[in-house]
Amino acid sequence: MFEQIFENVRRKSPLVHCITNYVTVNDCANMLLACGGSPIMADEPDDAVEITAICGGLTINIGTLNQRTLPSMLAAGKRANELGHSVVLDPVGAGASKLRTDTALRLLKDVRFTAIRGNISEIKTLASGSGTTKGVDADVADRVTDENLDGAVSFVKELARRTGAIIAVTGAIDIVAEGERAFCIRNGRPEMSSITGTGCQLSVLTTAFVTANPNQPLEAAAAAVCAMGLCGEIAYKRMTEQDGNASYRNYIIDAMYRLTPAELEKGTKYEVR
Amino acid sequence: MFEQIFENVRRKSPLVHCITNYVTVNDCANMLLACGGSPIMADEPDDAVEITAICGGLTINIGTLNQRTLPSMLAAGKRANELGHSVVLDPVGAGASKLRTDTALRLLKDVRFTAIRGNISEIKTLASGSGTTKGVDADVADRVTDENLDGAVSFVKELARRTGAIIAVTGAIDIVAEGERAFCIRNGRPEMSSITGTGCQLSVLTTAFVTANPNQPLEAAAAAVCAMGLCGEIAYKRMTEQDGNASYRNYIIDAMYRLTPAELEKGTKYEVR
Amino acid sequence: MFEQIFENVRRKSPLVHCITNYVTVNDCANMLLACGGSPIMADEPDDAVEITAICGGLTINIGTLNQRTLPSMLAAGKRANELGHSVVLDPVGAGASKLRTDTALRLLKDVRFTAIRGNISEIKTLASGSGTTKGVDADVADRVTDENLDGAVSFVKELARRTGAIIAVTGAIDIVAEGERAFCIRNGRPEMSSITGTGCQLSVLTTAFVTANPNQPLEAAAAAVCAMGLCGEIAYKRMTEQDGNASYRNYIIDAMYRLTPAELEKGTKYEVR
Repeated sequence: MFEQIFENVRRKSPLVHCITNYVTVNDCANMLLACGGSPIMADEPDDAVEITAICGGLTINIGTLNQRTLPSMLAAGKRANELGHSVVLDPVGAGASKLRTDTALRLLKDVRFTAIRGNISEIKTLASGSGTTKGVDADVADRVTDENLDGAVSFVKELARRTGAIIAVTGAIDIVAEGERAFCIRNGRPEMSSITGTGCQLSVLTTAFVTANPNQPLEAAAAAVCAMGLCGEIAYKRMTEQDGNASYRNYIIDAMYRLTPAELEKGTKYEVR
Repeated sequence: MFEQIFENVRRKSPLVHCITNYVTVNDCANMLLACGGSPIMADEPDDAVEITAICGGLTINIGTLNQRTLPSMLAAGKRANELGHSVVLDPVGAGASKLRTDTALRLLKDVRFTAIRGNISEIKTLASGSGTTKGVDADVADRVTDENLDGAVSFVKELARRTGAIIAVTGAIDIVAEGERAFCIRNGRPEMSSITGTGCQLSVLTTAFVTANPNQPLEAAAAAVCAMGLCGEIAYKRMTEQDGNASYRNYIIDAMYRLTPAELEKGTKYEVR
Repeated sequence: MFEQIFENVRRKSPLVHCITNYVTVNDCANMLLACGGSPIMADEPDDAVEITAICGGLTINIGTLNQRTLPSMLAAGKRANELGHSVVLDPVGAGASKLRTDTALRLLKDVRFTAIRGNISEIKTLASGSGTTKGVDADVADRVTDENLDGAVSFVKELARRTGAIIAVTGAIDIVAEGERAFCIRNGRPEMSSITGTGCQLSVLTTAFVTANPNQPLEAAAAAVCAMGLCGEIAYKRMTEQDGNASYRNYIIDAMYRLTPAELEKGTKYEVR
């Protein structure tokens, strides 16, 4: 199934508009190109709305958010909704500051998202309306483990029902869920968290996958999460004793560039709950 | 000829001010350093004007353009004109949105450019005043091929005459022209388009080359285009079966860092029409 | 001594807020992760103040400064002071324009810095109130050499006394000083200046080191400078004939990721004056 989904990405080459932070934007662009998509970035309100219209999908990432880009996010999100385009939210740092929490909640209220991807602390903030995120990383206390997986899956499904969006919570075990069904994914490597922006990259990847597969957004989002994790595994095998997080970053994007749909199909590790 | 031009870049180490997008800015800075130049970036109006004055050249790139940076581009461009500095325009996404098209046309009206570098769709937008650019990539219908090369060369020369700028249209075949003379360049690799920002990098490279060679801007711009393409070829030879677009990006900048003027002279593939 | 200091960084994993330029921000984030710290970036005034409060340290870097981020810098700096957090200033391009010089002086007046790291031209600008910086690089005339080292050390100590901050001047010979004591450091490679942002990376590294070692900020800042230089040396040894500044950039961050506290202790080259 994931094979066909990834083939659709490669074949359709979805153009993805990203309103995103300036920290990881270059890696997001290269990751989109690596998966077969095409990136474009605009953040001035009028420009963002117009660029949204010529694209197939939109990613809204609230890292390095400011008062100028907030209206762009809202306007572009609404425009994407009008056009029936896929829209993915990455609530970077929701729970870490009032501006970020409020913005995430405001976006959730005004824009209908196809999918929302964040770490467990960010997603809990969206669900509860407040949070105690440790910066842009998940709180240790929140982490999804084999012990609390059942409860986490229920929580994620419930939020998916409530928001109408696919919810992708990424961490050691990833959960990608709609109201009645969840993919629990065990691809990936812990070392990926030593690279800035692997989460942001996954969010734009998710946009490309759901855009190229409008009829099966849950499976497409799950495929994107598996693909990112699998590339983390492939890239890790390539690491020498001298390589660190900078080379690892490059190797993961390289792995996505080289990944075939058949390899993705074969390399995925998930169960459906 | 290109040997001497490149030697001038290495020897003079031109300081190049870049008002550019935040997607590819880091690669632009490293590419400038790789060729022997020196980068500086400022985009607040007053700062941009003052920084322009201490530099030798200015690149204006309209990707991720906003209402704050637009006046900076106009003011810095005019100041560079007053000082007789070289100014290069990269009309990223002209034709893809009203803001970008209008801004490119406005800049063209208010600033005298030494050179303009874009893909064929962006350049056609400048020529016609409107366009249908597919995001930041060229429309397939517009592409320069052996079949339509004669017409394309005439079109580019005509625009060069009209604007007084050297026009560099890059793609599978690159055309770098002034009113009466055009270099048709066949360096480069198609895989370069799978890296974000190779066009932006070429624009800052062009600024460095024309700044270090004020008396032969056409040849300098053509040398920059050849150098970029040649580095794409050299870097491609280095690719292993595990390398993808992220490593390729690094290898191209590395290749520029290592390229000697003699190697450039020997590796160029062009004809003058 | 540096061994223990670096172990504290790895063990405490300080969360460092960076208000910094968009040119080198991604490298700063990956360098922070490489050393064992954790990065977060915010530049909207309210957000910046709130994010400052949840972090241990703050870096203020004035590259690509604008009228929106200036109040953020001032407000975040003051908040960090109230909370007793460490704050490091990187006065990028002070002396190159009025906005940058004035901003650096204003910050110096309104915020109490734990450390200030810049090249010699930027630091001289802070001391004298004006300067003639060549863009973002040091003027050749200003450079610290064995011949003028005594005078330079006196100058740096004097500025440290006057500002109450540790002053770190980096170049071929680095000087890290408080009022009565200076570390003269000879780690590093001249090729590091062919990479954009090695100075910015060192500034965030310095923030991580002083944050994790609040009782010995001078030694911590000196350890950060030694660590960066040592990683430049280690990475240089790894360079092949095809590698240039792009790969070198990655290798330096990789080297920091792999560096052990014991290796740092062993590899430092300094004298105390």
